[in-house]
Amino acid sequence: MVERKAQGRVPCRESEDPSPMEEFALRPNPDDPRLTRPVAGIDQDGRPVETSVTVERPLTLFLNGREIVTMMTIGDYPEYLAIGYLLNQNMLRPDDRVTAVEYDEDLETVVVRTDRETDFEDKLRKKTLTSGCAQGTVFGDVMESFERIRLSSAARLHTSWLYALTRKINTAPSLYLTAGAIHGCVLCERDRPLVYMEDVGRHNAVDKIAGYMYRHGVDPEDKIFYTTGRLTSEMVIKTVQMRIPILVSRSGFTAWGVELARQAGLTLIGRARGRRFLALAGEERIVFDADPRTAADEDSRHRRKGAEEDAAE
Amino acid sequence: MVERKAQGRVPCRESEDPSPMEEFALRPNPDDPRLTRPVAGIDQDGRPVETSVTVERPLTLFLNGREIVTMMTIGDYPEYLAIGYLLNQNMLRPDDRVTAVEYDEDLETVVVRTDRETDFEDKLRKKTLTSGCAQGTVFGDVMESFERIRLSSAARLHTSWLYALTRKINTAPSLYLTAGAIHGCVLCERDRPLVYMEDVGRHNAVDKIAGYMYRHGVDPEDKIFYTTGRLTSEMVIKTVQMRIPILVSRSGFTAWGVELARQAGLTLIGRARGRRFLALAGEERIVFDADPRTAADEDSRHRRKGAEEDAAE
Repeated sequence: MVERKAQGRVPCRESEDPSPMEEFALRPNPDDPRLTRPVAGIDQDGRPVETSVTVERPLTLFLNGREIVTMMTIGDYPEYLAIGYLLNQNMLRPDDRVTAVEYDEDLETVVVRTDRETDFEDKLRKKTLTSGCAQGTVFGDVMESFERIRLSSAARLHTSWLYALTRKINTAPSLYLTAGAIHGCVLCERDRPLVYMEDVGRHNAVDKIAGYMYRHGVDPEDKIFYTTGRLTSEMVIKTVQMRIPILVSRSGFTAWGVELARQAGLTLIGRARGRRFLALAGEERIVFDADPRTAADEDSRHRRKGAEEDAAE
Repeated sequence: MVERKAQGRVPCRESEDPSPMEEFALRPNPDDPRLTRPVAGIDQDGRPVETSVTVERPLTLFLNGREIVTMMTIGDYPEYLAIGYLLNQNMLRPDDRVTAVEYDEDLETVVVRTDRETDFEDKLRKKTLTSGCAQGTVFGDVMESFERIRLSSAARLHTSWLYALTRKINTAPSLYLTAGAIHGCVLCERDRPLVYMEDVGRHNAVDKIAGYMYRHGVDPEDKIFYTTGRLTSEMVIKTVQMRIPILVSRSGFTAWGVELARQAGLTLIGRARGRRFLALAGEERIVFDADPRTAADEDSRHRRKGAEEDAAE
């Protein structure tokens, strides 16, 4: 039904295999002309202005020929998004073998094929809406498996790493700095950002990282997950699903997010800006090796544009 | 199946009928102890701190006894949320007569009853995910009716109103200022904010305003809708569904949001901060009656906390 188009304008990165240890192995490409579009309008003085807006495209996901969902995405990594979505919804198990991922840019479809018969139909029936965007969903057995997951107790977060990470992430070129109105998620190890994904939907950015980790066999146990978004129940559930023991955000907390993080033993750090942060769960993984008085506050040039211009979604 | 609990702790506001013309007829109540919860944690120096986080609760919505959806909400206006959700999903038509709304706080359910047989079952089959949170949905015929809606061409937005509105909204007490990680939407008329709703999910805040407008027969044609969130396709679709001709946000745009606003003839204003703003659709409704050089920039005390602390979701 869907043809393979390896030569499509947004190729799947199957053959690419950067070391997961390389700093910014994947990062946003704000110069990619497909991702933003100039739009004309007027400003507060009635003067004509041109600005950049982020483009979103539909992508319909099939698992073994069965239609699962249509997502709106910036469309940069359809393969990672497809696999990550299925993993984070428990429709694909970490030990499943993906035999093919077929992306068709014209049809706006991506098909994931596995050798195991998948049993997602029951899952589609049991769904619960989660917080954050009123209509996010997790399927029934995600919550069941959530309760069984044990996160690494050996993992540590040094505050010196945290300060280095937020500085590197905030100063990296991004679609956010170009067009705003977008979310970012970064997979990190120690003081190094490894994979930085952006998308209009926050959950797409997370799912793309999950897909990347699966495709490249990245060990989650010593990783740190950074997000620009709020620490909602959904964000906590997805981080735990990915077996990453530490979640950091520059944004705030919801009560249910905190509750779930404590249940799962996830280290939950929010409002991480400049030298300040707040830890509301899993504090025992934090090593205070930086003098917070010496960590520079975010200066206005390096401050994430979101802080000034764009409280994303 | 679900009993009426008129004496519940979160009563439905059916009998209340404030004039929709009163400034801040409804506004956030950050002192309501049910809406936030103190949580203990540690700060960047390892010192114990206590902070406030927003509480979210599940609310399962039934229409005439049929289960529609479970939402996560702060739970302050279950009746408005229920009715607004159904209206914005086209499951309830503006001319439908709602015969009862039954909220049960213990069961976490709200039941909306109508005298017309509702035909939402087909709608549940035709759904399209929209932008913003990857898993937002609009049902099939919402897009069909979207194309038929004609917004008021007589409506105007004076820039002097816009500056007054953003100043009043940013300085009003809110859950955002208390606990962060929350979205706000405000129904306005001329330079006056009328109904200010907040919720963890941005769409809940919009739906609560739609429910309020339906219950109080508020005319949408001369109104202005203000949101803290991004101007995504979903936000544009909902504003048009509500027949409000002008949408203003302090956040940025997505390409599809701009496209839909232009199709519908909606006035779309984003990045409205201090004296600055950008209009990308429906510019003809704007009347430039304020000198933007005299409108004060947001000072740090009045600047929405989001700008400093919390790029919500």
